Amino acid sequence: MDPRFNDYLHARRAEIEAALAAVLPSPPDCPAIVADAMKYSLTAGGKRLRPILCLASAEAVGGARAEAMPAACAIELIHTYSLIHDDLPAMDNDTMRRGRPTLHVVVGEGMAILAGDGLLTEAFALMARAPESSDPVVCTRKLHVIGVVARAAGACGMVGGQALDLAGGASTAQEPPTPMTADELRAMHARKTGALIRAAAVAGGVMGGGDDRVIAGIDLAATELGLAFQIIDDILDVEGAPGTLGKTTGKDAAAGKATYPALYGVSTARAMAAACLDRAERHLEAVRLGDSRLIDIGRWIVDRSN
Amino acid sequence: MDPRFNDYLHARRAEIEAALAAVLPSPPDCPAIVADAMKYSLTAGGKRLRPILCLASAEAVGGARAEAMPAACAIELIHTYSLIHDDLPAMDNDTMRRGRPTLHVVVGEGMAILAGDGLLTEAFALMARAPESSDPVVCTRKLHVIGVVARAAGACGMVGGQALDLAGGASTAQEPPTPMTADELRAMHARKTGALIRAAAVAGGVMGGGDDRVIAGIDLAATELGLAFQIIDDILDVEGAPGTLGKTTGKDAAAGKATYPALYGVSTARAMAAACLDRAERHLEAVRLGDSRLIDIGRWIVDRSN
Repeated sequence: MDPRFNDYLHARRAEIEAALAAVLPSPPDCPAIVADAMKYSLTAGGKRLRPILCLASAEAVGGARAEAMPAACAIELIHTYSLIHDDLPAMDNDTMRRGRPTLHVVVGEGMAILAGDGLLTEAFALMARAPESSDPVVCTRKLHVIGVVARAAGACGMVGGQALDLAGGASTAQEPPTPMTADELRAMHARKTGALIRAAAVAGGVMGGGDDRVIAGIDLAATELGLAFQIIDDILDVEGAPGTLGKTTGKDAAAGKATYPALYGVSTARAMAAACLDRAERHLEAVRLGDSRLIDIGRWIVDRSN
Repeated sequence: MDPRFNDYLHARRAEIEAALAAVLPSPPDCPAIVADAMKYSLTAGGKRLRPILCLASAEAVGGARAEAMPAACAIELIHTYSLIHDDLPAMDNDTMRRGRPTLHVVVGEGMAILAGDGLLTEAFALMARAPESSDPVVCTRKLHVIGVVARAAGACGMVGGQALDLAGGASTAQEPPTPMTADELRAMHARKTGALIRAAAVAGGVMGGGDDRVIAGIDLAATELGLAFQIIDDILDVEGAPGTLGKTTGKDAAAGKATYPALYGVSTARAMAAACLDRAERHLEAVRLGDSRLIDIGRWIVDRSN
């Protein structure tokens, strides 16, 4: 990785960590028992890909990072809640995440569900209040972004994708699970991981004041980056060391889940991710964002080892 | 009950049911498996107290019901999600609700968690998009209401109250549960049931264009109504027939939970609820809303049998 881009990632992460620490509710407003649980998961580390993408998108369209920081944090709260709920015994039943026991192992299932609910709800409280402004333009952007993020996170997006994943290929409760086809796998991931990554990029563009055409280009690019992210995630689940990833690996294969390397083999899957990156770059170049940090972030998504 | 008020409740409920049916996501936007689960719980009936209160509040301040209907529906989506999650085995472990098996009994715990997540998220998508308007005044009201509802539903409100209830009097994960005092019980319920009832009334007042002073009066009145609601709920859990309530009764007492009748006896608890109603009426009269439907709704809360 370009050392300057590495510095950039470090600087962004430090800003984001500080902003996240400031947005979590705390006693006496919020009972300590649930505030502590929310904090445990939110401060567990993580790449902070989505907020970094959000801020980069705001800057790419000529906006200031401060305008997009609340949305960036809100999206990370939503991502964190989704991990807590996905890790529950009733879902993926994961006991390790980011090198630490998952939240339900530490505080119990009920409190983990509530901490997830609290993070999701706090995300919307945050986007409604910040950045504080009585300017009608900012107000319109905030409502636009709340709508984008809610649709991406909800039953038509991330929650729907997780439901499809959980149902294992069945489309109704009556139908038995069947192995997913490549198209179904892609559609499931477009919801489960793609939608929120797209929303992060779009939210940054909207808060930064990008025009509709540029934001449409960012959305197309982020769609490709979301798919690349998932392909690489699947490859890392096969190849990665648990110590590097901080979570159990090889689970997808063990569960007989359809994954990109299982369907296409690792080298074809890697080539698919690289093709996504190429398409993303072309979408960005088409809206004159070919020299933005969004390109570097795309390369990082494809080249990452955790 | 005054037959004209009964007609009023029926008319409002019919409007709300129609509006709710129209806001739920459906295939192909949303996978059927999660859309069906969300619909199962949302269409299970229920009093629709919160949306009725929201609409009445909008009309009390001189607004139109249509302006408040999206917020009214959003709050009912949030209430429904909270019931789904509260009923889970990891929380209250209830198997019957509104005369039907609870959602996790029908679709499994994982899908029930996701359906709850989907309803919560959809509530914010709805408030962001509706009522559709480019008027900066409406835009500002919508953001205000999203903030009010998110704070009421989140870790500082409803989720925090459920966390306190789940922890059974412990304030941190390290502390053992202890029986709640009367003050702790009241503070827990102010979050768990009170906050969303207040938010419903305030949201209606804001969308209807009430000024800050009137909305503060509505908020004070709704705080009293929320407490009255909980006291009556506790009494019905002792006295009510499961057939009328559509859910298991006597659970609180069996679980050794602090309740108003357990702490004060049934007749004192009833008198406390009546005193709440009196105070609510005085708050409403102080902002010249003493002849609004909010008063009738208060009486209904105290006189209800389910």
